Amino acid sequence: MGSVDFVYPSMNDHQCAHRVAIPPPQPFFKSFKNSLKETFFPDDPLRQFKNKTPTRKFILGLQYFLPILEWAPRYSLQFLKADLIAGITIASLAIPQGISYAKLANLPPIIGLYSSFIPPLIYAMMGSSRDLAVGTIAVSSLLIASMLGEEVNATENPSLYLHLAFTATFFAGLLQASLGLLRLGFIVDFLSHATIVGYMAGAATIVCLQQLKGILGLDHFTNSTSIISVMRSVFTQTHESKRRPKFFWISAMAPLASVIFGSLLVYLTHAEKHGVQVIGNLKKGLNPPSFGDFVFTSPYMSTAVKTGMITGIVALAEGVAVGRSFAMFKHYHIDGNKEMVAIGTMNIVGSCFSCYLTTGPFSRSAVNFNAGCKTAMSNVIMAIAVMFTLLFLTPLFHYTPLVVLSAIIMAAMLGLIDYEAAIHLWKVDKFDFVVCMGAYIGVVFASVEVGLVIAVAISLLRLLLFVARPRTFVLGNIPNSTIYRNVDQYPNTNNVPGVLILEIDAPIYFANSSYLRERISRWIDEEEDKLKSTGETGLQYVILDMSAVGNIDTSGTSMLEEVKKTTDRRGLKLVLANPGAEVMKKLNKSKFLENIGEDWIYLTVGEAVEACNHKLHTCKPDSTKEETQPLNNV
Amino acid sequence: MGSVDFVYPSMNDHQCAHRVAIPPPQPFFKSFKNSLKETFFPDDPLRQFKNKTPTRKFILGLQYFLPILEWAPRYSLQFLKADLIAGITIASLAIPQGISYAKLANLPPIIGLYSSFIPPLIYAMMGSSRDLAVGTIAVSSLLIASMLGEEVNATENPSLYLHLAFTATFFAGLLQASLGLLRLGFIVDFLSHATIVGYMAGAATIVCLQQLKGILGLDHFTNSTSIISVMRSVFTQTHESKRRPKFFWISAMAPLASVIFGSLLVYLTHAEKHGVQVIGNLKKGLNPPSFGDFVFTSPYMSTAVKTGMITGIVALAEGVAVGRSFAMFKHYHIDGNKEMVAIGTMNIVGSCFSCYLTTGPFSRSAVNFNAGCKTAMSNVIMAIAVMFTLLFLTPLFHYTPLVVLSAIIMAAMLGLIDYEAAIHLWKVDKFDFVVCMGAYIGVVFASVEVGLVIAVAISLLRLLLFVARPRTFVLGNIPNSTIYRNVDQYPNTNNVPGVLILEIDAPIYFANSSYLRERISRWIDEEEDKLKSTGETGLQYVILDMSAVGNIDTSGTSMLEEVKKTTDRRGLKLVLANPGAEVMKKLNKSKFLENIGEDWIYLTVGEAVEACNHKLHTCKPDSTKEETQPLNNV
Repeated sequence: MGSVDFVYPSMNDHQCAHRVAIPPPQPFFKSFKNSLKETFFPDDPLRQFKNKTPTRKFILGLQYFLPILEWAPRYSLQFLKADLIAGITIASLAIPQGISYAKLANLPPIIGLYSSFIPPLIYAMMGSSRDLAVGTIAVSSLLIASMLGEEVNATENPSLYLHLAFTATFFAGLLQASLGLLRLGFIVDFLSHATIVGYMAGAATIVCLQQLKGILGLDHFTNSTSIISVMRSVFTQTHESKRRPKFFWISAMAPLASVIFGSLLVYLTHAEKHGVQVIGNLKKGLNPPSFGDFVFTSPYMSTAVKTGMITGIVALAEGVAVGRSFAMFKHYHIDGNKEMVAIGTMNIVGSCFSCYLTTGPFSRSAVNFNAGCKTAMSNVIMAIAVMFTLLFLTPLFHYTPLVVLSAIIMAAMLGLIDYEAAIHLWKVDKFDFVVCMGAYIGVVFASVEVGLVIAVAISLLRLLLFVARPRTFVLGNIPNSTIYRNVDQYPNTNNVPGVLILEIDAPIYFANSSYLRERISRWIDEEEDKLKSTGETGLQYVILDMSAVGNIDTSGTSMLEEVKKTTDRRGLKLVLANPGAEVMKKLNKSKFLENIGEDWIYLTVGEAVEACNHKLHTCKPDSTKEETQPLNNV
Repeated sequence: MGSVDFVYPSMNDHQCAHRVAIPPPQPFFKSFKNSLKETFFPDDPLRQFKNKTPTRKFILGLQYFLPILEWAPRYSLQFLKADLIAGITIASLAIPQGISYAKLANLPPIIGLYSSFIPPLIYAMMGSSRDLAVGTIAVSSLLIASMLGEEVNATENPSLYLHLAFTATFFAGLLQASLGLLRLGFIVDFLSHATIVGYMAGAATIVCLQQLKGILGLDHFTNSTSIISVMRSVFTQTHESKRRPKFFWISAMAPLASVIFGSLLVYLTHAEKHGVQVIGNLKKGLNPPSFGDFVFTSPYMSTAVKTGMITGIVALAEGVAVGRSFAMFKHYHIDGNKEMVAIGTMNIVGSCFSCYLTTGPFSRSAVNFNAGCKTAMSNVIMAIAVMFTLLFLTPLFHYTPLVVLSAIIMAAMLGLIDYEAAIHLWKVDKFDFVVCMGAYIGVVFASVEVGLVIAVAISLLRLLLFVARPRTFVLGNIPNSTIYRNVDQYPNTNNVPGVLILEIDAPIYFANSSYLRERISRWIDEEEDKLKSTGETGLQYVILDMSAVGNIDTSGTSMLEEVKKTTDRRGLKLVLANPGAEVMKKLNKSKFLENIGEDWIYLTVGEAVEACNHKLHTCKPDSTKEETQPLNNV
């Protein structure tokens, strides 16, 4: 950045300085209503109801809450064919995974099947995603096992544990539906992608280690190598399918195939008599009601509420993200808050009928999508298939070895370790990588709850640090223009003699006003030191470019007043460039505009510099009123 | 905003589009070091050590930690005269206030005197403020009474309670000194001015109600009216002194005068035998050591730690704010982190010698300042006066009626209710007013801790909401210029046919990327609807003005990629204007620059619009490579 060859770029004669407008005053109620709307209804969900007849509004309203009423009348045989194939495919995944994840949550295996029957039916009526396949997820199952396990031992007191799981699911559903109804869905946005990548990988690591211990502990099993090879084949197929949809059918069917193969093997070799643990008897019949089992007594209830809150948020984050990404892919629109109501309702209803926490797992939804599903009808088909299984096929699982379930879990888990995403985070954004690793390390070395808290805390810290330590830049003139930009980004800019131009890159709030006051003083000190050492013109003007200052609070306006006092005392003139609407409003109300003088606020840095230069070369600052007043042609 | 009279302003021929620079790559370590420095050493405290000899560095280092070494050699008789007057004045305030606040904390009155002896001596050596007068404060006293009182009853177990107070003070000091040493002082910035106004007023309300109850409960006291009139006179004098420094001497002496007057009255009328409670015997002698009394056993220790943390932060916030404001007024510089070390050390040492939590109270420092203090020597004078009192004058307080102490407390408290500041908050910034009222209501209706938590939570919520729900604006052209500004703030701007210009007013982070994606789609929908209804040229370009986007994370870059996909699908061209250094770096690393094409990124909105217009009038978007490439002359 050289200042020797600085030539002040002249503006055209007709381009005089423009006046910075104070936005037209708005009644408090109106602006309050506007910001409420932007906070809670950013997607304007009621837009389609505008200018409609009452009957039409009623129908639209029904369709809004039950999207099935919208797509069912247009449902065709073509769609049914596609959904039938997709539904049977995901059912073949849902049955073994359901049983496996229930084991992971320390719940009876049959609960996993129950959970694939009622919730998909509810979702098919209320959900607006066409691709989401409902089911339980590994991470929530693990969280339930860990959090409820602290209070109640699942082996010693299985029925209390089970009832607590239903209660936790009930509260999770209640939370999810309330978040949606209160339009607070943006809370799940605070679980960033980086958090989820680290968290899932951590959970997967824990689960794999757990399951491996189980597998390696099989001393009495004579034929263990074949089981491990089954596991390996399942693993490689499922894992690689993520990148090669060609093998999709194999991977989709692999879990069911291994269950059948494993069960046959045990049945034929009678391995269950040689120490191989099998599922054993599963009760025939559909979901029994469980709303009588809810535990609302101390101290269990608080554990259930806590578990419900945390698992509910995690499950919701996955479900909403899955719904959104497939909607984006197929170009239809999803209302996040409505999805939350649907997911919440299916959990509330599910918890009343012996289901535990369900959501839209990524893996199952991807299979659904790849199998060509068209509507939520594929969930209905899956539910029917599961119903059929519950009614007639449960005896077939008697001989299914537990080790196959472990293999299924591990296969699903290894797919969750997305190291490529972690590498991407490291390359693009180191802070996101720290968040991701924080979640991973927290989960692996402390617990699933601690990992979540660490990751969210680091993420929030980043937002707070952005505000608490905003960047400030010195701006310089881009040659042959009236444009001023950051001298670090544009090293060939020229500085303007006697003028220090600073850009502030964040809103001015209580959290940064002390910092900014000191930082601005330091910039001025440094500039004066530099000028003194080179013997150049002394500093006369300090221009603050406010373009990036989105808002200011009362601490911020006090800070500006103090900066004004400091510059006045040092014989410098403070100039503001391009304060935005919100900032101008506050500066006006706090009387800072009167204090600085509206003539010292310019629309662009270029105009501010021109005015300073004009005065610098014709007179000393603050000489007469006429000269300091810019012409206003706006 | 009309579009009919839009004339595209032509640029001078030599002003072609400028290229947006990707900042020169910096080694990771260097940029990491820079951001660490800005976070922890924003005031560059080691600047004065640069280019000095080792001996000089050593002396400077000693002076850095013990500022007394710097000012004592230059100390003059002139200064001593001024400090003597100021010191005696604040001592006359410190003695009655010390006794009163100790009562407020449910501690023996003598502890209040002890606390005005040791800590001021430590501060005089280590503190860098010339005006801060050390003493106990009402809010911390109240917090100690409330938080320790939950664990131990002060009447039933006074010695344990006392020892817990010392322990809490020790931990408070430890926290304060550590925050300073670790350069984490910015944490107190999160207690905004609005929080403090509401919090102090709430604490004052509670204390007044408490004291009033005590005063009104004096059934047996025959001469109560005179006491109330004393109280009223004290109150009016102290309260008005804030605005009228003329009556300053009266207000500074009023507490001592009322103590003397009240004690005399009781002594002469023997009122203590008619039910008027008096202080009673105070032990003669200096502070006994108390470091053997610290309680490090469960469950008391955790209470002491918690109390220490909260009271420590509150006291620190007051001390640092007081130091800063007087330094600003007298034009000298204060290092907040160094002040914290000084305040922390004086509390650690104090807690070892029977003192409870001290800081620099605003009221006492203001009296110090108004009495003309020159250096921290006034604190030494005060300490000597208190020492003299402890050694010889304690019997004089035997007859001091407790009701006078209540009056002194109430007088100080009513001065804390700064309703004018609350009105200012309401006028300038509604959100700050909500924070203030949150603190007030929380303190008055729940507890001193709850109030603090509510206020800090609302303040943080505001920061998070700023990021989670950033404002987006449509920009329009200011007539006869190439400047583009918010159409709400500048209603006479013209829109550009076929081009939608959006400004994003916050960093693009995980917390807002979903929102921004939906909001941008909605802006495009609304613009297309509007164009359709008026039959104007269809939308062809969407320009995102990134000037105010200070940073972007990986969720943000994914969001931009999705927006790019959406606009591509709708046949629109996405153009970026003026992305900053940090944003360009991330966009480059995440390959988004390759995706959008560097030719679609312009330095200013004006240049972007010119390029779009050029293409709009000569060809369809994306026709040939040559035409889409701007000339780069930077």
